[in-house]
Amino acid sequence: MTQEIKSAEVVSIVKIGGGLLESPDLMEPFLRAFAALPGAKILIHGGGQRATHMSKRLGITPKMHEGRRITNAETLEVALMVYGGWANKTVVAKLQALNCHALGVSGADGNLILANKRPIVDVDYGFVGDVTKVNTTALRALLGSGFVPVFCALSHDGNGQMLNTNADTIAAEIAIALGTAFESRLYYCFEKDGVLMDVDNPDSVIPQINPSLYSQLQEEGIIAAGMLPKLHNCFQALKRGVGRVFIGSPNLLIAPKAKHTEISL
Amino acid sequence: MTQEIKSAEVVSIVKIGGGLLESPDLMEPFLRAFAALPGAKILIHGGGQRATHMSKRLGITPKMHEGRRITNAETLEVALMVYGGWANKTVVAKLQALNCHALGVSGADGNLILANKRPIVDVDYGFVGDVTKVNTTALRALLGSGFVPVFCALSHDGNGQMLNTNADTIAAEIAIALGTAFESRLYYCFEKDGVLMDVDNPDSVIPQINPSLYSQLQEEGIIAAGMLPKLHNCFQALKRGVGRVFIGSPNLLIAPKAKHTEISL
Repeated sequence: MTQEIKSAEVVSIVKIGGGLLESPDLMEPFLRAFAALPGAKILIHGGGQRATHMSKRLGITPKMHEGRRITNAETLEVALMVYGGWANKTVVAKLQALNCHALGVSGADGNLILANKRPIVDVDYGFVGDVTKVNTTALRALLGSGFVPVFCALSHDGNGQMLNTNADTIAAEIAIALGTAFESRLYYCFEKDGVLMDVDNPDSVIPQINPSLYSQLQEEGIIAAGMLPKLHNCFQALKRGVGRVFIGSPNLLIAPKAKHTEISL
Repeated sequence: MTQEIKSAEVVSIVKIGGGLLESPDLMEPFLRAFAALPGAKILIHGGGQRATHMSKRLGITPKMHEGRRITNAETLEVALMVYGGWANKTVVAKLQALNCHALGVSGADGNLILANKRPIVDVDYGFVGDVTKVNTTALRALLGSGFVPVFCALSHDGNGQMLNTNADTIAAEIAIALGTAFESRLYYCFEKDGVLMDVDNPDSVIPQINPSLYSQLQEEGIIAAGMLPKLHNCFQALKRGVGRVFIGSPNLLIAPKAKHTEISL
């Protein structure tokens, strides 16, 4: 085996929650912080709140199972429209206005993210994809040309089928795939300053979470249900070669001393 | 002035009409023909029929003026969703399945197409853009990396505002912009084999139209109203350096002897 020399170059992979996307007051400072972040970078966004709202306007009742959307054909159409269209193009246009050379993509574009349609076990999630491969050749070609890829939460199966895919997972898989050639850093940005010890006290940010603290917090019921898969993604990312993983508000992108949670092994 | 040596490389710019997009029976052979086209290529698609349908489902009444959509804020949202999301990602996923390395973009992505919001003279078209610049640096970077850009009919103003933009015009402007470095060929593909002498006789394809025949056909009322701006775009493209311009069915992409109309000066 040849030993690969790691490039010292940092690539930042930033996921923003749907809550930021829906609020201009939160979105604007986030985009400014992201645009100011130096070096190669990638943004991943959701759009679930707007998708739920649009589904309702179209008379489609959204179905969820354990926080994950069940995607039938008409729900997929809404996801394509809201994630791939409205959310993605709105974010890209705003970033371009901030001189950030954004280029919006789904996993089908440039064959960037291949996924398998999730097999039916107990639940049929419909057109939902589990990531199988990140096309680092295409992704590095985009980064190498100075583009800032902006991913929506959609992948494809390589046979012409688009698939709804969890944005947190896409972010982690991209960070892992780029971790072999770059020092990759994964940021989960949302409305709060980090993982909170007391969900009602915004000052109770836990500065660092390692696996033993995670188990302890989980046992004590301190970590909210929605945070569990996110933290699972964080540990997986670190185990699979991602340099550093952070959870916090957009402030952490531009002010390293801002309160935030760092996940570590 | 230095004289620029033209590259002999051909780039094909193909626009497909919304009618093809809505019909799987027409779409599938078109995408196969496009995927088989050798060399650098770019696809531009509309989506107006679906946008009209989606607007109606959402209780928005589409407003048109001389064949052009009037785009208020909620109509723009539909355009972002349908053109940038549903249509663009559906086409890209299908092309990727045919081993065509498609990458879907709007004019905001990579700052590829800048436009000015159309000034209000007699009619306020709303969020409609007139193309001012095609970013050939970014476009050539994508082509150079082997991507096949798939454009939807959206541009941006560079200040964060997305704009609805005529797909025929986007196709012509891209062909013109690339015409300085490539031998650019512009194809307008739709359901018919070309411009017809008799709209009820599909065999009456006019093989070649030059400006004098155009004037004659126009005077005699033979050219349909919808075809006039398309032909105007074609002549403009030829005058501004595009190599060849064709109107016809997808067959013309793979079978040069198939019936079609070529526009010439």
